[in-house]
Amino acid sequence: MVNHAPSPSTPSSPRLVGIDWGTSNRRAYLVDAAGACLAAHADGEGMLAARPGFAASLAGLLAQMDGGTGVPVVAAGMIGSAQGWREVPYLATDVPLDALPDHLYRVDDPAAGRPVWIVPGYAQRGLEVDVMRGEETQLLGALALGRRDGWFVLPGTHSKWVRLEDGVIRRIATFMTGELFATLAAHGTLAPLMADEDAGADHEAFADGLDAARRGAPLSHALFGARARVVTGAMPAAHTRAWVSGLLIGAEFVAARAWTGDAGTLVCIGADALRGRYARAARHFGVGFDALDPDRVFCAALARFIDRIPA
Amino acid sequence: MVNHAPSPSTPSSPRLVGIDWGTSNRRAYLVDAAGACLAAHADGEGMLAARPGFAASLAGLLAQMDGGTGVPVVAAGMIGSAQGWREVPYLATDVPLDALPDHLYRVDDPAAGRPVWIVPGYAQRGLEVDVMRGEETQLLGALALGRRDGWFVLPGTHSKWVRLEDGVIRRIATFMTGELFATLAAHGTLAPLMADEDAGADHEAFADGLDAARRGAPLSHALFGARARVVTGAMPAAHTRAWVSGLLIGAEFVAARAWTGDAGTLVCIGADALRGRYARAARHFGVGFDALDPDRVFCAALARFIDRIPA
Repeated sequence: MVNHAPSPSTPSSPRLVGIDWGTSNRRAYLVDAAGACLAAHADGEGMLAARPGFAASLAGLLAQMDGGTGVPVVAAGMIGSAQGWREVPYLATDVPLDALPDHLYRVDDPAAGRPVWIVPGYAQRGLEVDVMRGEETQLLGALALGRRDGWFVLPGTHSKWVRLEDGVIRRIATFMTGELFATLAAHGTLAPLMADEDAGADHEAFADGLDAARRGAPLSHALFGARARVVTGAMPAAHTRAWVSGLLIGAEFVAARAWTGDAGTLVCIGADALRGRYARAARHFGVGFDALDPDRVFCAALARFIDRIPA
Repeated sequence: MVNHAPSPSTPSSPRLVGIDWGTSNRRAYLVDAAGACLAAHADGEGMLAARPGFAASLAGLLAQMDGGTGVPVVAAGMIGSAQGWREVPYLATDVPLDALPDHLYRVDDPAAGRPVWIVPGYAQRGLEVDVMRGEETQLLGALALGRRDGWFVLPGTHSKWVRLEDGVIRRIATFMTGELFATLAAHGTLAPLMADEDAGADHEAFADGLDAARRGAPLSHALFGARARVVTGAMPAAHTRAWVSGLLIGAEFVAARAWTGDAGTLVCIGADALRGRYARAARHFGVGFDALDPDRVFCAALARFIDRIPA
């Protein structure tokens, strides 16, 4: 549980609580009428943990945020999925991100005692079906900060790569990178090799994994290469974690390059630790790299929502 | 536990017990001096279950095979790994399969009461490190049956593709197909979707998965496509198992084709259910397909070992 309250230079009134409410975690921000962050809170009460009662879970969250009572709430992420508070239909990718504030979905749950607005996700249909819930809000924030074009990566359990052209989503590509990494570390052939890590060799082993990704073999084959290297003495077992991380993250870069030729400058919206890995991968593949702070982009998106949400 | 005893036309004397002793299962065959199978036995006492005492585990197996007492034993598979009865060094791939009988590794464990010969596996070194233990014996059996060239696939937990040229291993490529399928079905995002299967749609969903593999995206991305299809209504959840199976098996064919251009006729050495899936995949990708019975090839390999193992 994390609480921090940036001190505004002049006291201002709370106007909106925005929640990035994912499957396993949530982060909440209290903003004023200008979208400046007055308080923030993060905890592990994601959609799954909150499911017995979303209104009660929300009340618990707001009680921990000074000034959070009485203002409306907007929530993005899996809270709008079939397993969430209310299933909100996906938008089609031809709806520009700038229009996202027009599509907020109002939930009137008497138990909540206030309106809760849910941000819809996007679905890409056709041959390459893909979806997002939550990332659209980060992307709207990036737009608000002047980033309307190019590849964006939002790393995590499900790493999302999104291609924007003038604020319109042209491609969504989800990679189950974080989930596969965690699953492989916990179950099966590679799990014992991933138990101990040689932190000193992290950079080298990660780069070797990136190179393995570049060779383009299917992951089901390349992953076995970690075990084969270890049992033949070609790689110490303690390199496996970083090597697998490099392989999985490298596969994202190799695919994105195949889709667009030149990836241009990649904009990463992610927390510190992962951002560092993606920065190293970008350098390795000769891709320009820039990063936006996830808290900052989320609050920038909230500022765009305020006008559409009655106080 | 399976026992079957092919009835030989004339009674003959047991000469050797051969065991395909894998990580989780084992199959044993009692053969006469000509390599004809007198009895067979299969159970779940693989390397992991047998590890507390390999000699006792072997004694238990032989007690269930009429005529198995007193003859020498040869064992292939993970029993020769670091976690097995004795770690047997890998052969280099330039050792022809015909020479495998010259490299049997004799283990004299007093508790076993008889010599146990372990078949060494092979390691491919260099940039594409890969290994096998157990499959070399199947491949020797294929050689004994006149198959010395082309691509062989031995499907399973770790599916092995092997390229032979005149009985010499030119490429080993392991795919963690069965393991990934089982892991995805048990843990994470896809597990709930893989719980129920629409057997009636198996062929169509499997073929769709093969097509997804052909598009060449990294598996970490393509796998998420199953979830995206289901949540957008583009695919029924009950198609997911077959679709994922098609994707993972398809990735093997796409990779093998990239490595050799034309794959020629693929020879599959695998049990019925998997053999059927690989046959359908081969048809889908326009690859010639032939199959050898795993029991038959194993006994054909045993016939090659008999001369090198004192009675």
